[in-house]
Amino acid sequence: MIAPVTDEFLAKMDAYWRAANYLSIGQIYLLDNPLLKTPLTHQHIKPRLLGHWGTTPGLNLVYVHLNRLIQERDLNVLYIAGPGHGGPGIVANVYLEGTYTEVYPQISRDEAGLKKLFKQFSFPGGIGSHCTPETPGSIHEGGELGYSLSHAFGAAFDNPDLLVACVVGDGEAETGPLATAWHSNKFLNPAQDGAVLPILHLNGYKIANPTVLSRIPKEELQSLFQGYGYAPIFVEGDDPMIVHRTFAIALESAVLEIQRIQREAREKGNRQRPVWPMIVLKTPKGWTCPKEIDGKLTEGSWRSHQVPMGDMRSDEHLKTLETWLKSYRPEELFDEKGAFKPELAALAPQGTRRMGANPHANGGILLKDLQLPDFKKYEVKIGQPGDTNSEATRVQGMFLRDVMKRNAEARNFRLFSPDELASNRWQDVLEVTDRAFDGIIDPKDGTQESPEGRGMEMLSEHQCQGWLEGYLLTGRHGFFSCYEAFVHIVDSMFNQHAKWLKVSRDIAWRKPIGSLNYLLSSHVWRQDHNGFSHQDPGFLDHVINKKAEVVRVYLPPDANCLLSVTNHCLRSRNYVNVVVAGKQPAPVWLTMEEAAEHCTKGIGIWEWASNDNGTEPDVIIGCSGDVPTLEALAAIALIREQLPKLKVRLVNVVDLMKLQPASEHPHGLSDGEFDQLFTRDKPVIFAFHGYPWLIHRLTYRRTNHGNLHVRGYKEEGTTTTPFDMCVLNQIDRYNLVLDVIHRVPGLRDQAQSTVSYILGKLVEHRKYITEHGIDLPEILNWQWSGRAAGKPGRGDTSADNV
Amino acid sequence: MIAPVTDEFLAKMDAYWRAANYLSIGQIYLLDNPLLKTPLTHQHIKPRLLGHWGTTPGLNLVYVHLNRLIQERDLNVLYIAGPGHGGPGIVANVYLEGTYTEVYPQISRDEAGLKKLFKQFSFPGGIGSHCTPETPGSIHEGGELGYSLSHAFGAAFDNPDLLVACVVGDGEAETGPLATAWHSNKFLNPAQDGAVLPILHLNGYKIANPTVLSRIPKEELQSLFQGYGYAPIFVEGDDPMIVHRTFAIALESAVLEIQRIQREAREKGNRQRPVWPMIVLKTPKGWTCPKEIDGKLTEGSWRSHQVPMGDMRSDEHLKTLETWLKSYRPEELFDEKGAFKPELAALAPQGTRRMGANPHANGGILLKDLQLPDFKKYEVKIGQPGDTNSEATRVQGMFLRDVMKRNAEARNFRLFSPDELASNRWQDVLEVTDRAFDGIIDPKDGTQESPEGRGMEMLSEHQCQGWLEGYLLTGRHGFFSCYEAFVHIVDSMFNQHAKWLKVSRDIAWRKPIGSLNYLLSSHVWRQDHNGFSHQDPGFLDHVINKKAEVVRVYLPPDANCLLSVTNHCLRSRNYVNVVVAGKQPAPVWLTMEEAAEHCTKGIGIWEWASNDNGTEPDVIIGCSGDVPTLEALAAIALIREQLPKLKVRLVNVVDLMKLQPASEHPHGLSDGEFDQLFTRDKPVIFAFHGYPWLIHRLTYRRTNHGNLHVRGYKEEGTTTTPFDMCVLNQIDRYNLVLDVIHRVPGLRDQAQSTVSYILGKLVEHRKYITEHGIDLPEILNWQWSGRAAGKPGRGDTSADNV
Repeated sequence: MIAPVTDEFLAKMDAYWRAANYLSIGQIYLLDNPLLKTPLTHQHIKPRLLGHWGTTPGLNLVYVHLNRLIQERDLNVLYIAGPGHGGPGIVANVYLEGTYTEVYPQISRDEAGLKKLFKQFSFPGGIGSHCTPETPGSIHEGGELGYSLSHAFGAAFDNPDLLVACVVGDGEAETGPLATAWHSNKFLNPAQDGAVLPILHLNGYKIANPTVLSRIPKEELQSLFQGYGYAPIFVEGDDPMIVHRTFAIALESAVLEIQRIQREAREKGNRQRPVWPMIVLKTPKGWTCPKEIDGKLTEGSWRSHQVPMGDMRSDEHLKTLETWLKSYRPEELFDEKGAFKPELAALAPQGTRRMGANPHANGGILLKDLQLPDFKKYEVKIGQPGDTNSEATRVQGMFLRDVMKRNAEARNFRLFSPDELASNRWQDVLEVTDRAFDGIIDPKDGTQESPEGRGMEMLSEHQCQGWLEGYLLTGRHGFFSCYEAFVHIVDSMFNQHAKWLKVSRDIAWRKPIGSLNYLLSSHVWRQDHNGFSHQDPGFLDHVINKKAEVVRVYLPPDANCLLSVTNHCLRSRNYVNVVVAGKQPAPVWLTMEEAAEHCTKGIGIWEWASNDNGTEPDVIIGCSGDVPTLEALAAIALIREQLPKLKVRLVNVVDLMKLQPASEHPHGLSDGEFDQLFTRDKPVIFAFHGYPWLIHRLTYRRTNHGNLHVRGYKEEGTTTTPFDMCVLNQIDRYNLVLDVIHRVPGLRDQAQSTVSYILGKLVEHRKYITEHGIDLPEILNWQWSGRAAGKPGRGDTSADNV
Repeated sequence: MIAPVTDEFLAKMDAYWRAANYLSIGQIYLLDNPLLKTPLTHQHIKPRLLGHWGTTPGLNLVYVHLNRLIQERDLNVLYIAGPGHGGPGIVANVYLEGTYTEVYPQISRDEAGLKKLFKQFSFPGGIGSHCTPETPGSIHEGGELGYSLSHAFGAAFDNPDLLVACVVGDGEAETGPLATAWHSNKFLNPAQDGAVLPILHLNGYKIANPTVLSRIPKEELQSLFQGYGYAPIFVEGDDPMIVHRTFAIALESAVLEIQRIQREAREKGNRQRPVWPMIVLKTPKGWTCPKEIDGKLTEGSWRSHQVPMGDMRSDEHLKTLETWLKSYRPEELFDEKGAFKPELAALAPQGTRRMGANPHANGGILLKDLQLPDFKKYEVKIGQPGDTNSEATRVQGMFLRDVMKRNAEARNFRLFSPDELASNRWQDVLEVTDRAFDGIIDPKDGTQESPEGRGMEMLSEHQCQGWLEGYLLTGRHGFFSCYEAFVHIVDSMFNQHAKWLKVSRDIAWRKPIGSLNYLLSSHVWRQDHNGFSHQDPGFLDHVINKKAEVVRVYLPPDANCLLSVTNHCLRSRNYVNVVVAGKQPAPVWLTMEEAAEHCTKGIGIWEWASNDNGTEPDVIIGCSGDVPTLEALAAIALIREQLPKLKVRLVNVVDLMKLQPASEHPHGLSDGEFDQLFTRDKPVIFAFHGYPWLIHRLTYRRTNHGNLHVRGYKEEGTTTTPFDMCVLNQIDRYNLVLDVIHRVPGLRDQAQSTVSYILGKLVEHRKYITEHGIDLPEILNWQWSGRAAGKPGRGDTSADNV
């Protein structure tokens, strides 16, 4: 039953709200005189006015009301502020509840602290205007819009006691990611997950325009949310006391309904998807600021979106500001010394019940290591290098299956994928868990869905990424499996998460969280069947623009290496790990022991494929990525056959950042180490998984860079055969041998018959695929012969060998 | 009134549908024996089975029914196939209606043509599985999912007679972009725009999962679309003849309702947003394929998503395929010679009424040049370089305002922005047009919205990009204004459009379309106030991974250069033009004449800022971007003052691709030209707008690359002052001078007092901003002194000058 809130209590809440509003405006405008003890002068005003008032009173209102309910019902609540630039409001509230001063003692609960609180906002050396990592209680910065609700659901998964209150801005609600995030309710299990209470804050305007959802009839809006599967509760008004009263009732009834739903599921075993409540809160933009400024409508208008009065050199504006600030009656809120009055402060919850101190918002402190099986047990056994084929990601899936199993009780591991979990070959995971789904399930499906599932699949990369981020930020672990080309859909989300991690690393109280792990499969070289639109390896370029201490890129050449890398990623913290691996049957080159050693080094010479025998080679063939490694080895085999005296060294790169100088990336090789591998003056032909210039970008400072010739994807693709994808981009074995011949001094003249032979092969290839639609049997059945290591080959007597 | 469709006619339509289905399956499976004249053998089957059957029968059904209605009511219809891999169905229909053979005569309307039609599908040298640019009638490839509806609305804008029928897949419908695209109906003007008829094809499954929208109760689905502002019409069934009948009625009533709405708006002047019809078509996935294969449910299951039977080595499967193909009774559909029977062919519309031949789908043939005013008339007049400040994008906005005005009658120009049109300073455009909006408009808004507006603003980069793409692909012009950091949201959409353009260039019948023009403003260097989350210049890195013949990147250093570049972009065809320019007041360096000449060259020495006087300089300072140019000039002024004998050359780069070798990009300088500018051996300090390694990536092959030292954004940012953003990333004047001192041989020892002076300046800067929150007056008021060109400066007598 809804607890009655007395008028007296509502008045107190209003005072609390006024305090939060006062502090928010103070942050935007004031450099000094925080309690307005003296008349406001121009000297008290910040020289540069930054910040956003528009959304703030609404955010503050929700915070204050959640505080009451947390106290009333001992709730465990995480607050997510979706609207952009909500920083001042959240900081104000976290300050009022005491958390801020605990974390940042210099921002004390007195006049001096208030002055610092005000000054630091959007000020050099201070804090930003969003709910940045510096903000206690935040897992969602809100600098870029659109991800609040996905984050909220990610936080709620596997946290049965948690209620995530998510304020969604009506501007943000226009973004695509947010528009689909409402459907997250079909993936939430009321029995085992927590709850999300979305609060759509309909304040009517964004920067310069009305918002779409505020300009459709109420019945449409209601239909929309009913269609999304919610029971919307509407609260509307511009009279604070009326809104306080109705919002208190709305919020409490929403929470009661959530608890009823959870009881139904938990105690009565109801497995039907519930209709969760949500709230539509319609209040004026910039509520409680001056109705008009300079004769122009301000409260309730887009003009209050940012700083309602920009030019504060005018005495009239100064007066307006003073009147505005005093309208909150600061003298009733703070004592002489600037301390928040105890009878108001008492409205806030205590300890970790304070939303700013909720441990879920600092997930690292809740983080438990995953229980990992020994990855070496999943070894694909081989005799000779390449004599066994394996689907690398499928082997990875077996490992992940057992990770899932071992951590089933801990409930802290999930897999995320836009309908590609099985397509990318993680299907074995379904032996131990289902796909999460809470919609209508048809027993005929055979797709293993249940509300208990831990495989998160919705056809939205945004949703997968947002859920996973929310899950990680609240102290859990996960892996995101994605088609390589389409991971670009979340480029911008990755940016924001990488930036969050970069900043978090320097905040002592933020504890490290689980890394954001990507498997990029169905990659460019095996998208011959899906065609040009599905071919793009550029996420790597995008990723390495971010801070070196945050990003890691791995290109394991085979299944055993992928196992080693996966094991490493699941143990790591605070990184973004990007792993690129194929799902098609492909040769395994290294035993598990060799793979583990190779992956630990991250880069190395494959002696068994080289014939320089520790001397200076004539040419180095570098390779990174599974298909490039295969082609590099096939090229070496061709060279052994055609040009057996040529001393070739193969260097394989798993950890891409090894190529960068040590000064640029913590994984980077020293110049000496690099030269040991690639020499200082010999030609290097490098077959790379991605765009070739990425390798140049990483190595341009190396001594031997002038001799480095890189082959990679150069945006030549179509619907063709797998090998032809290589040929089109000249990364195939034949073109690599031609490159070697062109680059090794003096070799061209001696290798004319080899050149003819190879050109003939390329013609034969083209002819065959155009006729048969598949690759030549000699390509399909090619196997490493084991003859590379200096042993004599067929071509030894050929006239054009060196 | 709805025209009655006789049973006889329905039977004919069913036959037509069967023909389309037959041809679709033929494309997926058959290499030969297209008419099944002899018993099917393994030799007739493709060696590699690719393609997607699941969505195809639905796409075919819609096509056939649209054909009827086009004939019946002489409609002008563009067909957009949203579901992925819809290629075989659309190709089948375009073939049946005759367009395909007109465009590709070798695919003749006989048995030989059928054989080729079948073979080419997903075959090397053939066509892809989506509605690629090679597909007549397509403006939407559908390789990546999510953009069909935005494309559809983009096509409908300003095409009052056009009906865009857009089939939305229920998988695609889960993506974010699609989920918000439904709201496009609030931006469409029934009086002056065409109409979009969305047809949600609810076939229940994606690759391996049921779809979300097929697993919510029908009432919820209905509410959802009512909430989106549509009147959904439901058609459901698995009996073809029943579905034919109900779908014919549904489609016709939808079209009649659209026409009624248009009459209301056009004849009666009704300006209320209409409730547009849409259709929900629920039919089995893979409809009409075998119910079961190998004992497993196939029709109506995710198992029919791709190739329903994979392994065709089995005789039983061969038999199943033959039975399946024969179930369409090909002998009733094609004559002995393989020609489509005339009485069925007659069901298709004629000429350009055929959807495959609709000229809107080959927008280049409808494209009219924009009427452009003389951009030189918008010149910002200057005396000396830098003596006048100007907001560059605001000046651009004045030019665009007049472009808008001049082409008002042609109705072929729109501007697109996610609520940032005014924020990025194009507000003058609102003098001649409104923002497009068809929701509830409040006269108090003062935001100039109307259904007639040509400023397209919704807070969704996806929507802006999708609309613009649709608008361009149907032969119109536009410009997209976006915050630089958040343009990454559409990285993947850009990819797809760039790929489309690359392929289209090689298709003779596809005529060039207007370029996709981006203005990236509110850029990294002036996001000091919005903080770290808003700082990312990496779109340039992303863009130049695409084919050189498609992408162009411009970094005009001032307002006059921006005018010249804008003029160029609006005249160009088939490119993606990325223009980066600031919106804050900034110095104008060049007169209009100089700017036009400089932008035409794309790169050049600024003599007035250099003092090498045609001799070999001691050092080159390169710059690209407005803020880097300002800092480079300020650095030169410092050098003039402190080290007046140092010969410095300034090279400014507007057209970034000039830096690449001519062999890599059509705009690239020859090595000789490059060396003329940057010398072969002198140190080059380069101040770049974006990530510094981008410049290395473009220039690593140049002779003097070893001496190139680039400063740019290195992911160091926070909420601070504009100048401090430069300092944090060491691209500021002081650090540039330090770089010069470190890099010019022998200078370091001589310039010790300058080094001390500069280090002192940096300390002073840090101290000042932390105290005052704004930059030092000497930074804010800095002006180019005009003293650079070899004239003596104050420091001439200083001991540490060279």
